[in-house]
Amino acid sequence: MLIVQKYGGTSVGNPDRIKNVAARVAKYRALGDQIVVVVSAMSGVTDNLIKLAKEIMPLPSEREMDVLLATGEQQTIALTAIALHALNVPAVSLTGPQAGIVTDVVHTKAKIHNITPKKVHELLKQGNVVIVAGFQGETPEGQITTLGRGGSDLTAIALAAALKADLCQIYTDVDGVYTADPRIVPTAKKLEEISYDEMLELASLGAKVMQSRSVEFAKKFGVVFEVRSSLNENPGTIVKEETKSMEGVVVRGVSLDKNQAKITLVGVPDKPGVAARIFKALGDATVNVDMIVQNISHGTGTPQTDISFTADKPDLLKAQKVIDGLKSELGLREMITAEKIGKLSIVGVGMKSHTGVAGKLFDTLAREGVNIDMISTSEIKISVVIDLAKGEAAMKAVHAAFIG
Amino acid sequence: MLIVQKYGGTSVGNPDRIKNVAARVAKYRALGDQIVVVVSAMSGVTDNLIKLAKEIMPLPSEREMDVLLATGEQQTIALTAIALHALNVPAVSLTGPQAGIVTDVVHTKAKIHNITPKKVHELLKQGNVVIVAGFQGETPEGQITTLGRGGSDLTAIALAAALKADLCQIYTDVDGVYTADPRIVPTAKKLEEISYDEMLELASLGAKVMQSRSVEFAKKFGVVFEVRSSLNENPGTIVKEETKSMEGVVVRGVSLDKNQAKITLVGVPDKPGVAARIFKALGDATVNVDMIVQNISHGTGTPQTDISFTADKPDLLKAQKVIDGLKSELGLREMITAEKIGKLSIVGVGMKSHTGVAGKLFDTLAREGVNIDMISTSEIKISVVIDLAKGEAAMKAVHAAFIG
Repeated sequence: MLIVQKYGGTSVGNPDRIKNVAARVAKYRALGDQIVVVVSAMSGVTDNLIKLAKEIMPLPSEREMDVLLATGEQQTIALTAIALHALNVPAVSLTGPQAGIVTDVVHTKAKIHNITPKKVHELLKQGNVVIVAGFQGETPEGQITTLGRGGSDLTAIALAAALKADLCQIYTDVDGVYTADPRIVPTAKKLEEISYDEMLELASLGAKVMQSRSVEFAKKFGVVFEVRSSLNENPGTIVKEETKSMEGVVVRGVSLDKNQAKITLVGVPDKPGVAARIFKALGDATVNVDMIVQNISHGTGTPQTDISFTADKPDLLKAQKVIDGLKSELGLREMITAEKIGKLSIVGVGMKSHTGVAGKLFDTLAREGVNIDMISTSEIKISVVIDLAKGEAAMKAVHAAFIG
Repeated sequence: MLIVQKYGGTSVGNPDRIKNVAARVAKYRALGDQIVVVVSAMSGVTDNLIKLAKEIMPLPSEREMDVLLATGEQQTIALTAIALHALNVPAVSLTGPQAGIVTDVVHTKAKIHNITPKKVHELLKQGNVVIVAGFQGETPEGQITTLGRGGSDLTAIALAAALKADLCQIYTDVDGVYTADPRIVPTAKKLEEISYDEMLELASLGAKVMQSRSVEFAKKFGVVFEVRSSLNENPGTIVKEETKSMEGVVVRGVSLDKNQAKITLVGVPDKPGVAARIFKALGDATVNVDMIVQNISHGTGTPQTDISFTADKPDLLKAQKVIDGLKSELGLREMITAEKIGKLSIVGVGMKSHTGVAGKLFDTLAREGVNIDMISTSEIKISVVIDLAKGEAAMKAVHAAFIG
């Protein structure tokens, strides 16, 4: 079997942990598997480098930040190879560029353009474990790039696709994907498997396991991967295309995102182009808008409507400034902001073929005395914005109602 | 003018020092010069990485150490480019491989094979300061290599040669090359200029300014360079091919190397191949032998001779083991070692056309009551091994006699 294993920054955070990773890799290899290991920078290294750069200049050049930050992963690959040598396992490290990872030129958040893993294949064939630096690549012109947040997961999944690996394992500090955050819902269960779409919804809903882009990539190229812990031997959660059996389960997970703020624009002229103008301006200011709800228009003369949207809490001030700038131009009447909100979501591919899920959710919340502020649905999820103070109690009740 | 400037680890040891380097570079650039900057790793960074690796394995793979250590310089180039941006100076960083530095495959002490500075030229033409990582390159097959001790100096000088630079400045924490170590000889003077050969002798005689290989490279390719301080604006010492005027000065510098030990082999059979056997074995054991003195043979039957040599003090035990192993094979009678020795040398291209220099040296030492243990001469230097305890007094007397 050809296995791609990815270890994050905490798993390789110091020499002893790197030795642990090497021991795990050696165990798989002893079973006769070919192994490609993708590693992140040791935890803390990247933050220190960013701090150094910002001491020199508050907004350093993105090209140079890529040159700087790529060193973190390069250090880990060398140390991991050395740790395997210490166990008498032949191992060779490759930087992202050496592994054939070619990206576009968007520094600090480059997209993988293609992978030519010729060298990886050669080294595997010679019997080596191949250690590849996550998070990095180079442009066709040879400039160093990094892939942005979650970049090492992406490297692992893209390599698994390019190498046609039999298995891709994402090692992290949690046991897998849970039906809800176990710190809030003690009865939360680890899922044996989950579909790409469900995982995507969970990722975008505040479950911190993985960034959406890696899951999207895996879905696009059909890479089956497993999220599991580097601290124990427990099987993790398999992420794959949905199967018939999955659809039998209505709700796969419950999440609560406490990091959103709500902005309501009152009295928005209901004519073509106004919403586009607003959300284009927010996008240009890199405000990450999530839910958008628009009610039917009302009033006489030019009809008016109310638009509510949520955005990441740290972006709230930026969003307010954008809206203030548009107020007179668009004739907005009023802007109301709310920070003490929570977005509670239920996710499951089974939902689309089951009726009554929304009703059951709303009923459960009503019984808990939770008022619903906004509703947004997709084929496989329902999200509601509620009072933050009631968020955790609501989450437990909803988990109990749908999952147990 | 096209200027190559090299800054060592202390000069770029923290963000403030990097800003100082940037300010100096910006000042030159404001005069209209094109500038290529070569930097080392921030002081301490390389040692920390070595420590990490050795925590994992005492003798880590040299290939992987190169991957690991090359990150140090890569961090500095990015931070230096950022510091120049902060001063509104356009600057682009290049790793050794990106700058076109191709080496052989001898990891941790690679030799530069050739430099194709196409990208450097392009970036200069676009008006950029180009920051190149010292100490590193890649093999024709794309493996990362490092150049070993003094590697950043070598990068600077080799780049200056490849770019046909008008000036190459080696910035360090001393003002230049002195006639003697000012900590020992308070009357020591900074030299305005010195020839490659003199600099080479001084380098190999314990003057710590630069490694011999960089000077050899400069001599071979006729690169004139200046050793100067990054802490002030004083002109430094120009190192170049000897000129007529240099020959007028008999003695350019006096050095004292306290780091040598002496081994005398008594009763060495004086027949062809014996000395070769001894020094080949020492070389194989990587003992760095410096002076070798053999006296005329004496005795009846197979003639016998005594051979004395000096080696770096830390290599003494290794050397003893090698000689012990050869004792019976070669029929050596006895081995005598001495650690408390000093090697005092005078260097100067003028020496070769002046008679009486050796006599004056020996006379000066005799007046100081210093006994001479070994003598070795070349066209431009005379070295004597003396009692370590009398080393500094002897050095002062010799400096006073020849230089003032």
